[in-house]
Amino acid sequence: MTRSITIADLARQLGAPFGGNGDLCVMRACEPRDAGAGDLALAMDPRFADSLKEGGARAAVLWADADWQSLGLEAAILVGRGRLAMAGITAAFDAGIGLEDGIHPSAVIHPTAHIGAGATIGPLVVIGAHAKLGARAMIAPQVSIGSGVQIGDDALIHAGAKIAARAHIGDRVIIQAGAVIGSDGFSFVTVERSHVEQARETLGASVDAQGQAWQRIASIGGVVIGDDVEIGANVTIDQGTIRPTRIGHGSKLDNQVHIGHNVIVGAHCLLCGQVGVAGSTVIGDYVVMAGQAGAADNITIGSGAIIGAGSGVLSNVPKGRSMMGYPAVAMQTHIDMYKALRRLPRALAKLSRKDS
Amino acid sequence: MTRSITIADLARQLGAPFGGNGDLCVMRACEPRDAGAGDLALAMDPRFADSLKEGGARAAVLWADADWQSLGLEAAILVGRGRLAMAGITAAFDAGIGLEDGIHPSAVIHPTAHIGAGATIGPLVVIGAHAKLGARAMIAPQVSIGSGVQIGDDALIHAGAKIAARAHIGDRVIIQAGAVIGSDGFSFVTVERSHVEQARETLGASVDAQGQAWQRIASIGGVVIGDDVEIGANVTIDQGTIRPTRIGHGSKLDNQVHIGHNVIVGAHCLLCGQVGVAGSTVIGDYVVMAGQAGAADNITIGSGAIIGAGSGVLSNVPKGRSMMGYPAVAMQTHIDMYKALRRLPRALAKLSRKDS
Amino acid sequence: MTRSITIADLARQLGAPFGGNGDLCVMRACEPRDAGAGDLALAMDPRFADSLKEGGARAAVLWADADWQSLGLEAAILVGRGRLAMAGITAAFDAGIGLEDGIHPSAVIHPTAHIGAGATIGPLVVIGAHAKLGARAMIAPQVSIGSGVQIGDDALIHAGAKIAARAHIGDRVIIQAGAVIGSDGFSFVTVERSHVEQARETLGASVDAQGQAWQRIASIGGVVIGDDVEIGANVTIDQGTIRPTRIGHGSKLDNQVHIGHNVIVGAHCLLCGQVGVAGSTVIGDYVVMAGQAGAADNITIGSGAIIGAGSGVLSNVPKGRSMMGYPAVAMQTHIDMYKALRRLPRALAKLSRKDS
Repeated sequence: MTRSITIADLARQLGAPFGGNGDLCVMRACEPRDAGAGDLALAMDPRFADSLKEGGARAAVLWADADWQSLGLEAAILVGRGRLAMAGITAAFDAGIGLEDGIHPSAVIHPTAHIGAGATIGPLVVIGAHAKLGARAMIAPQVSIGSGVQIGDDALIHAGAKIAARAHIGDRVIIQAGAVIGSDGFSFVTVERSHVEQARETLGASVDAQGQAWQRIASIGGVVIGDDVEIGANVTIDQGTIRPTRIGHGSKLDNQVHIGHNVIVGAHCLLCGQVGVAGSTVIGDYVVMAGQAGAADNITIGSGAIIGAGSGVLSNVPKGRSMMGYPAVAMQTHIDMYKALRRLPRALAKLSRKDS
Repeated sequence: MTRSITIADLARQLGAPFGGNGDLCVMRACEPRDAGAGDLALAMDPRFADSLKEGGARAAVLWADADWQSLGLEAAILVGRGRLAMAGITAAFDAGIGLEDGIHPSAVIHPTAHIGAGATIGPLVVIGAHAKLGARAMIAPQVSIGSGVQIGDDALIHAGAKIAARAHIGDRVIIQAGAVIGSDGFSFVTVERSHVEQARETLGASVDAQGQAWQRIASIGGVVIGDDVEIGANVTIDQGTIRPTRIGHGSKLDNQVHIGHNVIVGAHCLLCGQVGVAGSTVIGDYVVMAGQAGAADNITIGSGAIIGAGSGVLSNVPKGRSMMGYPAVAMQTHIDMYKALRRLPRALAKLSRKDS
Repeated sequence: MTRSITIADLARQLGAPFGGNGDLCVMRACEPRDAGAGDLALAMDPRFADSLKEGGARAAVLWADADWQSLGLEAAILVGRGRLAMAGITAAFDAGIGLEDGIHPSAVIHPTAHIGAGATIGPLVVIGAHAKLGARAMIAPQVSIGSGVQIGDDALIHAGAKIAARAHIGDRVIIQAGAVIGSDGFSFVTVERSHVEQARETLGASVDAQGQAWQRIASIGGVVIGDDVEIGANVTIDQGTIRPTRIGHGSKLDNQVHIGHNVIVGAHCLLCGQVGVAGSTVIGDYVVMAGQAGAADNITIGSGAIIGAGSGVLSNVPKGRSMMGYPAVAMQTHIDMYKALRRLPRALAKLSRKDS
């Protein structure tokens, strides 16, 4: 479960210079305090210099102009942008998910499914009829891939993820455990016109339907997921009604995000933990929605918009706008309202003293 | 994975008139712009008339008094209520979940379980002792059905749903992938009286328990789910403590809804994505809770109430009341407060100018 | 699925006195109204005395100084603290999860895995290389335990839970169905300095990253879970980046809680349904977060703090502080602000009358 790498090799992978003994082998990346003799201490900011001395590291990754020798190290890699270096460092030490090569005999793979070259398929995976997996797929135990699903090259699908029939998934996609791709949309209608439709013009998706049962609108539009997308654990993405729900290239969805039917998420978005997007909403590119934020149905969020944590977006958001609150308003408006609200109890008390 | 149907047959299924060539076959329902020669364009509103010309459909579903011939179509179905027609249209083209008939040999079914006639059971399903499934059950791969569970006729249970021991589930229930029915309630107690119990009278479920460990109260009351209920992907429904948690007939729960122990949800409710209902709360019939709304424990929400998206209900809600905000108040009160808050920064600025 | 126990035995287990016929056998614990002749009515508060007469119970659990004979019972157990008694009573009648003893032949257990004495392992479980389970583990169907995972004694893991490689889990831990332990953290970086980093100083985790693709920082730090922890259904807990995400002894996480990477949750906390904790946040001991509350990343919540339902904590919280609202403020401040906001529409109306 551990890997070892020399300082010279790691520096080359990071595209960064190193000093000292390039042949020194490290087995693990650690916080400076926790690092032993075989570990690589990560101290990419001068404020961690002191904690280096508390640990036992002989090698470290340091800030660009660090005087590594004075820190008592035998070797050091010097990086300009610490957080970016973390991408390379963690990749170098990633031991993977521990699957054994090849296709496990307990996997149930339909004879009409196509498995690309170099695939690793774990125990008790189910792959349906006419499903197609690209090259080097890595499919963890108990994943379910429905009939007709298409997945590109270099997919990594963690344990127990469920991909329903008809989904199309791009290259280099990572899907975390328990995610559900292609559940049915939440789409119901009453036989006669209900209060639902009237209430739609008001805030949120409010609905009253006294006396009528719900008829189900099936979801047959599938899901299309672009290249380099990452889908978090226990995420749910509904199928579209008659056209696909779409997640654009490079977008990342954190754990427990919910994407309703017909939603279009653009490219390179970040949707953080527990974000919810209701049906048919369209999100541009490079949008960030912080944790627990929500978006109502049938609205548009422009490219580059930033939605603050826990905020509820109930109407269209222009391009590049930062929004916050419930209902979400422009960040500065929210701050002004909030500051005023903080002053309000005193202001009202003062007013009533005046009145009396 | 595709089905084909004639215009005459589909019109009959929808109970709607058609014009033109009833023998024309269509393979797929599409938005007008995306439709090719073999597709059925859906344009149930006159504002989609123009987009029909951008696509290549020869047949369409149109609004009731549409002049289909002038739109260059060979056949058209005319419907009065487009959204209702969607229920029938999507059902007609639904290719299902792609399971092969019969019971897959890899399913692990306890010899004492009873499987109804015409059941389809996918690979790697587990069905426990004395479980009982009704007729025509459709059980997708990797579903787990605990011992003693009872499920009515025509159930559709998607991949990886987990139904714990003791659940009773009605007819025609649909359970999406990853849903958990019958998890243990979140119910703990300290040996000596804790700050928890005192804090219960204040807002929410606030608790302080310095210095004491939590003792677990087990959940042995099961879950009872009525007929025609739909449970979304990755929903969680806890067992009751000594009596069942209940979901009434015809209610629909969207993805990632959480229902606490002892909760009673009435009939024909809609609980939208990521709604949470805390323990022992009672919800009437025809209640709608929009996305990310929450209800505190031990309260009552009257029939026909509408709870706005993202709202937090912390006290009882009368019948038919529309509520919004945190804590949720009557919709109009919320709007009045919100409008006042929008004006507040200026009002306070004005006041301080007067004071100075 | 039912158990029977005598009044005398149950009283002994509860450490409580009983009166009347100690040999009377009861099969089930019920609300007084629902209780039949073979059931034990639970009426630990005098206000339930009347409902006892509506049911048919011959035995009941009553409050400490109850005059059980006048209630027409043949036997009664008298308890001082009803809610604490519920812990013992529900444990006594808990029929368990219905697994058959031993290791089911369909489980896929790596030859290098170590399974402790007395383990029960259900159908279609997967246990990876070098995983180590303690004594008396109870593993429900379709659970996945990754390579190198270590789990203590007396674990109970419900159906379909997924535990990723490298997790260390203590003794007597209960993990509900569908929970995911050890998903990858949500950690991305752009090659050049992005607006993300600038926005971090403002509220929430707002980010703008126009024009750059996200590089992934892998999560290789694992998860460490203490003794006596309970993890709810469909919970997600991310691995830390280079050090473990930690859940302290005795803490309880309700359904659909999300714990980000590097988070440290102390001992004996209660995190209620759908709570979200963003990356690298540190939570003390005995903290309670009520349902749907959220905590931003990189903050500290002091021991004994109470966070109200639906609140959003965006900055550090001192020890023992009760917080509420969005952003969360001290409970009293929140109440003052809220009361003032309720009065605001009238106050503004009055002001404008004065002005005119």
